[in-house]
Amino acid sequence: MADQRAIALQYVHQNKEKFLSEYKQLLSIPSISTETSHARDIRKAAEWMADQLRGLGMKKVQIFKTAMHPIVYGEWLEAKGAPTLLVYGHYDVQPVDPLELWKSGPFDPVIRDENIYARGASDMKGQAMITLKAVEALVETGGLPVNVKWLFEGEEEVGSPNLDSFIAGHKDLLACDFAVNPDSGMIGKDAPTITYALRGLAYFELRIYGPEHDLHSGIYGGVVHNPANVLAELIAKMHDDQGRVTLPGFYDKVRELSVDERAELARVPMDEKHYLAQTGVPALYGEQGYTPYERTGARPTLDVNGLLSGFTGTGSKTVIPAWAMAKISTRLVPDQDPDEVHKQLVKFLEGNSPKDVRWELTVFHGGVPSISDRNNVGVRALGKALETVWGTRPYFRREGGSIPVVGQMQRLLGIESVITGFGLPDDNVHAPNEKQYLPNWYKGIEAFVHFFMNLIPD
Amino acid sequence: MADQRAIALQYVHQNKEKFLSEYKQLLSIPSISTETSHARDIRKAAEWMADQLRGLGMKKVQIFKTAMHPIVYGEWLEAKGAPTLLVYGHYDVQPVDPLELWKSGPFDPVIRDENIYARGASDMKGQAMITLKAVEALVETGGLPVNVKWLFEGEEEVGSPNLDSFIAGHKDLLACDFAVNPDSGMIGKDAPTITYALRGLAYFELRIYGPEHDLHSGIYGGVVHNPANVLAELIAKMHDDQGRVTLPGFYDKVRELSVDERAELARVPMDEKHYLAQTGVPALYGEQGYTPYERTGARPTLDVNGLLSGFTGTGSKTVIPAWAMAKISTRLVPDQDPDEVHKQLVKFLEGNSPKDVRWELTVFHGGVPSISDRNNVGVRALGKALETVWGTRPYFRREGGSIPVVGQMQRLLGIESVITGFGLPDDNVHAPNEKQYLPNWYKGIEAFVHFFMNLIPD
Repeated sequence: MADQRAIALQYVHQNKEKFLSEYKQLLSIPSISTETSHARDIRKAAEWMADQLRGLGMKKVQIFKTAMHPIVYGEWLEAKGAPTLLVYGHYDVQPVDPLELWKSGPFDPVIRDENIYARGASDMKGQAMITLKAVEALVETGGLPVNVKWLFEGEEEVGSPNLDSFIAGHKDLLACDFAVNPDSGMIGKDAPTITYALRGLAYFELRIYGPEHDLHSGIYGGVVHNPANVLAELIAKMHDDQGRVTLPGFYDKVRELSVDERAELARVPMDEKHYLAQTGVPALYGEQGYTPYERTGARPTLDVNGLLSGFTGTGSKTVIPAWAMAKISTRLVPDQDPDEVHKQLVKFLEGNSPKDVRWELTVFHGGVPSISDRNNVGVRALGKALETVWGTRPYFRREGGSIPVVGQMQRLLGIESVITGFGLPDDNVHAPNEKQYLPNWYKGIEAFVHFFMNLIPD
Repeated sequence: MADQRAIALQYVHQNKEKFLSEYKQLLSIPSISTETSHARDIRKAAEWMADQLRGLGMKKVQIFKTAMHPIVYGEWLEAKGAPTLLVYGHYDVQPVDPLELWKSGPFDPVIRDENIYARGASDMKGQAMITLKAVEALVETGGLPVNVKWLFEGEEEVGSPNLDSFIAGHKDLLACDFAVNPDSGMIGKDAPTITYALRGLAYFELRIYGPEHDLHSGIYGGVVHNPANVLAELIAKMHDDQGRVTLPGFYDKVRELSVDERAELARVPMDEKHYLAQTGVPALYGEQGYTPYERTGARPTLDVNGLLSGFTGTGSKTVIPAWAMAKISTRLVPDQDPDEVHKQLVKFLEGNSPKDVRWELTVFHGGVPSISDRNNVGVRALGKALETVWGTRPYFRREGGSIPVVGQMQRLLGIESVITGFGLPDDNVHAPNEKQYLPNWYKGIEAFVHFFMNLIPD
């Protein structure tokens, strides 16, 4: 078996150009799931993933239709006595606007300074490719040492509206020992990372309606409560002067950090300086009483994601807008619940919205927060693999982003997920000029070869 | 002379269709001054106005170039011993967005229910046409009884950036006894109105800059002060809970209303019910201690005119935006000054903006507020004319909108303006489906015939 490990790693080295070329193929498909105009691209990406699975000799490769975007499945279950893994991934990507800020086309992958630039390079076509290419290296050099099932969805960036019911309806098909989820990332380029907790998400659109139509601000300024001003007043009230969110009951179910966990999180090398460098802000901000890293990983937050009202073009237009809109989302930690946060926001609006306007709240996708056992068999095998490739013990962390499928699989399949990934914090995910650092992409493939080999029972 | 009055009025009646047809011609020219793409349309409208003046036998008709949009001039000075009037107008119009809310094309004038719908129908191509057609009626029926100069500008909707220097540079050309400015409107369709005070304007664009680029709200939510949240917090602080503007020193130079003036304004039929009907809001809002009409005419206000930040499309995108923008304007009353209000806003931002973001303030056009003598010769002649046509004494009012040229002419030419107009409060000026009520448009022409005749010395 030690022989196969070495031969498979050699295969990885010999096929670097081929792997990169296939990675670029996948990145060239504009599979934006949030925009209905890209439905054909989504299907194309799903078919590309299914072709990859067939090429690896996977069985039962199938593209399942859902109410929105398809799910790609495949399996190989011939490693008798070895554990069965469910590899999760998503082939959809975020929108690309503002397009004018991209230095090269978002779907025209370009390499600059050891990074490959394209929408999805890091989140997460690059990570999905790592798992596929590691399995290819093993399949081509003696066969897979473990049983593998694959689930690639196309709706992650819209909150996976159909994934929950798909999992619930295919419990036998998806049965396994644990899941592998490479949709997280690394703390730094020399700092391999395993994530043990994830924040959840509750996302809303709030609209404030005032006059029946836009009004002349000279003729009517002074008699109507301007909906843009009201929106601003409501948003301002959503935080107190300690940086805490004021939705009623928002912190009631938040698990407080233990002294032990705070000590462990303090070892993660993400201090104030790190966040200042990553964001470029003049000074950090956040809830008082917590470190920056605790605030992003272990504390809930509320952010405005978008604002729109009235005249936004060049120059001036003297209107009182008829309405104003804000996209507002909260990041949640165990044991908060997105549905409860929705109720809290409704209660906040009922209590704070003035009677001279009307409000309307739309709920978008949510995701439950999750927290996992750091000592399961998958985590141990991956930890050892990462240490072999990077020569350093991985960091265990709580991640601020949301991977709702982790909670869904825990609830519906009774399995935990091994969460990792090889993107970096400055990869510009969800932003212009998304990238993946290529040396770590190759190391990720090597690490996954070790990981699969490490899972063989002694 | 009584004969000419009657004959001129008959001419008006006989030429209703011709007048309407010319009005439609002017409305069909999309002379939007705020958008550079319409520069050719602006020139076309200027030439159309010059052609009208030539057709009326005006002398020295000339299109003056300015740094932006041209000024049209013409004169007729052969009424020896009679007063000289300077008629002001603007041939430019506001932008038309949101275009999808127009029931018919903004530059495709259509008559529905005695109203003509088009951008500029009320503000103020319709009013400019009234003065031209009244003069035509007199010219064609015995000649003008007074001396007239015309000044039509093409930059009113962008704040007349070049008008001040034009007036300053052409004091002799523009010398006159008083100005006539029909860029105001009527309180109601049976309520002829003369305006004696106007609010001023100071218009700003405020940008808040946070991170160097959009950030993932999961990874960074909790460490940066979201610029959209900061913008909301700053806007919220611009009013106190009494509806008063909190810019430092904002009310220092505001002339308080006397008991007499409050009593007079109370007679103007614009009560709470009126404003509720016009705006469609569930309840009125404004500075405590003043009536709705006082708040729009005699008290200063601050309104957000536009908001833009982050993701504003359909669906959700989990970003912390790199920046957030608000268009913010104040309406000013005597003796506030737009430059001083700019300084007050800078001081407010210096005092209230947190250190974890950067802000940038752009100043757009401003206009000084004005207040005039209600007993000058022009006002008396117009008041009598309006009473003759409508059979009711006109209302004297303070208007909430801004007509900066009134203050400029007072300062540079030493003249007062007779301010009137025949648009209605629900004409949707600066908004979709702008209209002019046609019966009043024709009555306006008749009233201006009377007005000119009333100016003949006894």
